[in-house]
Amino acid sequence: MTSAAVVLARCAELATVSASPTWLERTHLTPEHRRANALAGAWMEEAGLRVWQDAAGNICGRREGRTPGLPALLLGSHLDTVPDAGAYDGMLGVLMAIAVAERLSERALPFALEVIGFGDEEGARFGKALLGSQAVAGSWDEHWWSLRDRDDISLLEAFEAFGLDPRRVGEAARRPEELAGYLEAHIEQGPYLEAADASLGYVTTIAGARRFRLTVTGEARHAGGTPYERRRDALLGAAEMVVAVERLARAAGTIATVGRIEVQPGAVNVIAGRADLTLDLRAATDAERDRSWQEIERALLTVCETRDLHLDVVETHRAAAAHCADGLTEAVVAGIRASGDDRPRGLWSRAGHDAMAMAEVTDVAMLFVRCHDGISHHPEESVREIDVARGLDAFEQAVLEVARRTAVAPA
Amino acid sequence: MTSAAVVLARCAELATVSASPTWLERTHLTPEHRRANALAGAWMEEAGLRVWQDAAGNICGRREGRTPGLPALLLGSHLDTVPDAGAYDGMLGVLMAIAVAERLSERALPFALEVIGFGDEEGARFGKALLGSQAVAGSWDEHWWSLRDRDDISLLEAFEAFGLDPRRVGEAARRPEELAGYLEAHIEQGPYLEAADASLGYVTTIAGARRFRLTVTGEARHAGGTPYERRRDALLGAAEMVVAVERLARAAGTIATVGRIEVQPGAVNVIAGRADLTLDLRAATDAERDRSWQEIERALLTVCETRDLHLDVVETHRAAAAHCADGLTEAVVAGIRASGDDRPRGLWSRAGHDAMAMAEVTDVAMLFVRCHDGISHHPEESVREIDVARGLDAFEQAVLEVARRTAVAPA
Repeated sequence: MTSAAVVLARCAELATVSASPTWLERTHLTPEHRRANALAGAWMEEAGLRVWQDAAGNICGRREGRTPGLPALLLGSHLDTVPDAGAYDGMLGVLMAIAVAERLSERALPFALEVIGFGDEEGARFGKALLGSQAVAGSWDEHWWSLRDRDDISLLEAFEAFGLDPRRVGEAARRPEELAGYLEAHIEQGPYLEAADASLGYVTTIAGARRFRLTVTGEARHAGGTPYERRRDALLGAAEMVVAVERLARAAGTIATVGRIEVQPGAVNVIAGRADLTLDLRAATDAERDRSWQEIERALLTVCETRDLHLDVVETHRAAAAHCADGLTEAVVAGIRASGDDRPRGLWSRAGHDAMAMAEVTDVAMLFVRCHDGISHHPEESVREIDVARGLDAFEQAVLEVARRTAVAPA
Repeated sequence: MTSAAVVLARCAELATVSASPTWLERTHLTPEHRRANALAGAWMEEAGLRVWQDAAGNICGRREGRTPGLPALLLGSHLDTVPDAGAYDGMLGVLMAIAVAERLSERALPFALEVIGFGDEEGARFGKALLGSQAVAGSWDEHWWSLRDRDDISLLEAFEAFGLDPRRVGEAARRPEELAGYLEAHIEQGPYLEAADASLGYVTTIAGARRFRLTVTGEARHAGGTPYERRRDALLGAAEMVVAVERLARAAGTIATVGRIEVQPGAVNVIAGRADLTLDLRAATDAERDRSWQEIERALLTVCETRDLHLDVVETHRAAAAHCADGLTEAVVAGIRASGDDRPRGLWSRAGHDAMAMAEVTDVAMLFVRCHDGISHHPEESVREIDVARGLDAFEQAVLEVARRTAVAPA
């Protein structure tokens, strides 16, 4: 039986597959993506699954149920990371799914069991998140092909360079009738389970999110010779925007983050003529999220007016708040109870997850595993082996509970 | 006689020597530096000068005076540029100096005439400005060897890669007794001559400057899962600093600019754990400049205290305000009069210049040439041919005035 120790050892092995020798960075459609797929695929084969890479670059494994061709219960998460990442965000869920598939290899289930490692959830390379799971959910948008990474490579070009055929991306899509549901285990990425002294939790809803690319255009001029009243300093404008974003989101009870800024020309003695920023906005409901963005956008435009700057806004990602399905969530709750916790905690997830995209095509539910101090997207991300062990028990029992409910439910 | 049209054509030719196919960027000790030296050196030879590259990578030319070995009057400026530069900042002064040397080739002067094209004034590559002229002024600092560019190449490594011997950099230094003074022509980089409807001006003093590298350290965390009260967002702190820098400098009557910011890890959904900024500070006097820095530093530390961030400050450049010498400046004023302007305007330069470094070792004076709208450090930097023509006349006459004063002055 694949133990928590094995799962953690595999997390550590995956964490060596990085674009950098000094930190973990594994983004979409890179050589690291390919190597991670190969590793995960090998472990899936060990677990007795039939393995393939789908038309969107996700790594997949399947074992048939009682009879071949039954709808599949998907267990998954993602294999990509942010730059300078920890070893568990995404990967832990994929490796727990593989371990559960191995534990259940002798069971004749009333559904096929599939494991999926999505190739892009973070959106670190192209700005747009959930590329892997949206392809599987059948919600691919043709506009995404022209998204470009920092090296000006388009998603279309990256797809081809990875050996994928952009015209066939639709083949990754799954139809609702092929699916029995989607279950995802993931580290919490927040401090609430630790505060409650609980190893595990279940997710009630996943926050709605929008992401934007903001381009502030001013004028590059000599930093010495240009009086303040003649400056159109894009960095100063951007700085006021960053400060305003925090103030307004705090007031609105939403979460907004500017995580990236780049300025041109970027020299010590030249006023910045252009600043590119990203904005990540989350809220418990879509209405709160959209109201917050309206307030923020108004404030950004006021900065531009005051400083004679120009603002371009491109929305790179939008995800509706997703509700976890009652039936599948009850199965996760039953799994947590079976792992020894008689008071399972429900949480809403402020972070986005592949389950958001999958909710468009099938029922979803999520199991959260405690992580230390809520630290994530950082090398100090950590989980305890005991929590992973309880998580494996709960995840396995949740799948069996789904099997029980499938057996008694009308066809 | 080398005309203004030829000078401008040479500016255009130099502007093609760039690290980028789409904009002008020529920084210290790069292949472009070498090609610019070769071009300028060839033009110096055409003007009848003996040409060499000195031990710091500056390109030099010399013609002896009435008798060999006389102290040299240096005419010069710099050949390096900021990223996305215009074609005149620095280069125009070097090419005007070559043109003046050619015009005076038949004159037996009471000093040797030298032209120098400095390899680094902007400091765009290593953060530290005036590397070329400080080597010539004999004020080289051994600490600079460990300065690093964006690709983590040290100045020492870059020196060696360029074919220079770091141990011999001292050989570029000139002794005061070898020099009769330093004259520099330069575009104004400000709007004042244009506002006064004047082609030319002379410089009274050059502002004192300090440059700093500021590193703000917080903690990279997940942008969704981390509540505001647990964030240590380095970009938010940096943004507050950028805003405070402008507010305090305006209030103090100084000029402070943050021209570069880089954040780590720099992902859309990760709170920035680190921000690196540059600060460029200028003031009419050293005392004002230093008082302004004290106020700014206090404000930066307050931001860090409020947001639980850490600040590291490295001073990368410090130049005292430089006064132009009375005698040489009178020669420049006489030159401007001889060019047809009976009301020469004196200006103080907010921008730094090689003359600042050269003032440590000899008398200096500067001739400013009008540029449109004060635009500099930008591709739209422009000068009018008529202003360059007047500038050449004034520069030539200024040298002859120095010669007259040298002839009558006691040896």
